[in-house]
Amino acid sequence: MNRTSDHDVMDQARGWAARGEGVAVATVVGTQRSAPRPIGTRMVIGEGGGIDGSVSGGCVEGAVVEAAEALLAGGAPQLLEYGISDEQAWDVGLQCGGAISVWLERWEPSAGTPDDCLLEAARDGRRAAVVTLLDGERAGAKLFVDAAGERHGTLGADDLDAAAAAAADTLLWEERSAVREVLGQAVFVDVVAPPPRLFVFGAVDYATALCALAAQLGWRPFVIDPRARFAQPERFPAAEEVVAKWPQEAFTQLGGIDAATAIVVLTHDPKLDDAALELALRSPAAYVGAMGSRRAQESRRERLLALGLGEDELARIAAPVGLDLGAQSAEETALSIMAEIVALRRGRTGGRLRDASGRIHATAP
Amino acid sequence: MNRTSDHDVMDQARGWAARGEGVAVATVVGTQRSAPRPIGTRMVIGEGGGIDGSVSGGCVEGAVVEAAEALLAGGAPQLLEYGISDEQAWDVGLQCGGAISVWLERWEPSAGTPDDCLLEAARDGRRAAVVTLLDGERAGAKLFVDAAGERHGTLGADDLDAAAAAAADTLLWEERSAVREVLGQAVFVDVVAPPPRLFVFGAVDYATALCALAAQLGWRPFVIDPRARFAQPERFPAAEEVVAKWPQEAFTQLGGIDAATAIVVLTHDPKLDDAALELALRSPAAYVGAMGSRRAQESRRERLLALGLGEDELARIAAPVGLDLGAQSAEETALSIMAEIVALRRGRTGGRLRDASGRIHATAP
Repeated sequence: MNRTSDHDVMDQARGWAARGEGVAVATVVGTQRSAPRPIGTRMVIGEGGGIDGSVSGGCVEGAVVEAAEALLAGGAPQLLEYGISDEQAWDVGLQCGGAISVWLERWEPSAGTPDDCLLEAARDGRRAAVVTLLDGERAGAKLFVDAAGERHGTLGADDLDAAAAAAADTLLWEERSAVREVLGQAVFVDVVAPPPRLFVFGAVDYATALCALAAQLGWRPFVIDPRARFAQPERFPAAEEVVAKWPQEAFTQLGGIDAATAIVVLTHDPKLDDAALELALRSPAAYVGAMGSRRAQESRRERLLALGLGEDELARIAAPVGLDLGAQSAEETALSIMAEIVALRRGRTGGRLRDASGRIHATAP
Repeated sequence: MNRTSDHDVMDQARGWAARGEGVAVATVVGTQRSAPRPIGTRMVIGEGGGIDGSVSGGCVEGAVVEAAEALLAGGAPQLLEYGISDEQAWDVGLQCGGAISVWLERWEPSAGTPDDCLLEAARDGRRAAVVTLLDGERAGAKLFVDAAGERHGTLGADDLDAAAAAAADTLLWEERSAVREVLGQAVFVDVVAPPPRLFVFGAVDYATALCALAAQLGWRPFVIDPRARFAQPERFPAAEEVVAKWPQEAFTQLGGIDAATAIVVLTHDPKLDDAALELALRSPAAYVGAMGSRRAQESRRERLLALGLGEDELARIAAPVGLDLGAQSAEETALSIMAEIVALRRGRTGGRLRDASGRIHATAP
């Protein structure tokens, strides 16, 4: 599920359904090469002729609408494939030279169904997924799972549900929707996740710029500093919260560090930074960065080893923090840090795209 | 001259001078290793006991004030050196393990002097410099130069002025203050420059995010697109101006492309992008980036070669544009582009700092 725009599309569908219309939903479940819309993008087609959303920006929508009409007239859900080399019935080409897979199904908006649970989870900012069976007799069967272990619906067999939930759990934390094979059957795992959190430890000047940039990128920034004199909310207008507590207590208050949390320590004061780093490195945090020179990082390493942290834990620290931009101002330093955080989140290491090979964009969630 | 804070310091000095006090100005002109304040940072000392600004964040200020008092009592201007290995008279150490050179002089705030011209240029957002002779009999002599070729004052000889102006011209465009040797004499070139400009060609969705991020980083973003339907100022609230004209006319209206202008083309439409790229690649622009896939860049190369551009000109295009962050949203794409622009401006190529060697920060202007 594309989290930014697909709520509107589904709200539209909800309106048609409320009037008693049948509704077909077409979801992009796979993309090859430069497909125009990411996985999870939706298009809805109402029995009354309404159409909203788009799976390809115009190339294959006509064909999808035709298929949707057949579905609403009593057809079965199905997986549609479109691409430039497609010699099949639809004979449509994607201008951009890509190929897409679209899952087409009838939408049943009853309360408590897996799809309904996912919409609710998305609205509440929870981490959850719906797994849809794409082939076999039970194609279209659905299972809802969330990060807390809650489940609704079934793919039709307990072992299949268990295997699907395990596959979903990985994708939940990668924040990525994708097709997976589970016990020999293809399923589409459609993930929703809340905006990622950034814990900035150290209520220093750099934190102000870092929070502003993080918020602009859709992150939820929090500032933590036990020195109440510095931890003044008015200094960090972009922060969701400023917590004037020691790391352990602050992290607990903020709901703990999970695998979608990035942590950056900025105080330059070993007794403060080390306390936060020790907890961060023993947590599943997605990113742990520490400001300071290479020499400062060398002493930091020694202190953290003395605290009992292992080499593998220390290897996670991004220090000196950020990408190598030659940053001068606080804003440029924030840019270098957020660029590193985003790059690592997508499995990249920065560097210029023109010197790289492989995909420009990460596989979209 | 540090452009962000030193105006305040000099305004303070102006106040003291207006009351008839003598004023000494200490300027950081050189730094080695991790010096705490960048080149150009100023501290002012008034005859009446006033002190403002800081050259080292506390390590050597006492010694500078003592030297300033001697200067104001009739001493000559001089170059002071401080560092951890300094066994000289002052016997002060920089906590951070750096070394700094500080030029100490009496400030004469008369209208029309080189220093006064520089303050005015800084206020007007012009690109200019003052060259100060650091040694010899005429130590303290000054020459003002600007990017348009205007000059005020003299270092005492025409050939010296000409050589100093040439050295300054390079630093004006590097936006960097530095000590240089000119005809065997040491001079300090103190540079002021306006915020850099970003020309975004293509009034598309990505341009909105790019302008917002650029403005947050202190750049002046402009949007250009001949398609008046897209070039609507309200879509680009962070842009300084939105120009609905073809590239040639738009660039002229905006004062031309200079060596401090970055240009990014985003339309995806060859007939639009190529027109802008042809002009950009034949200009002294600091950065020329073009959005699109590797395949799109291959066709673009062929079209631009057909337009008569050379391989060396084409080698300047950053395409695919941006650093390799696996960007998904428009905001992340803007992040990857601004990160590349800042990196190239500082002579870096991105990549993670922890995998790099050398200085973390660029030499500050």
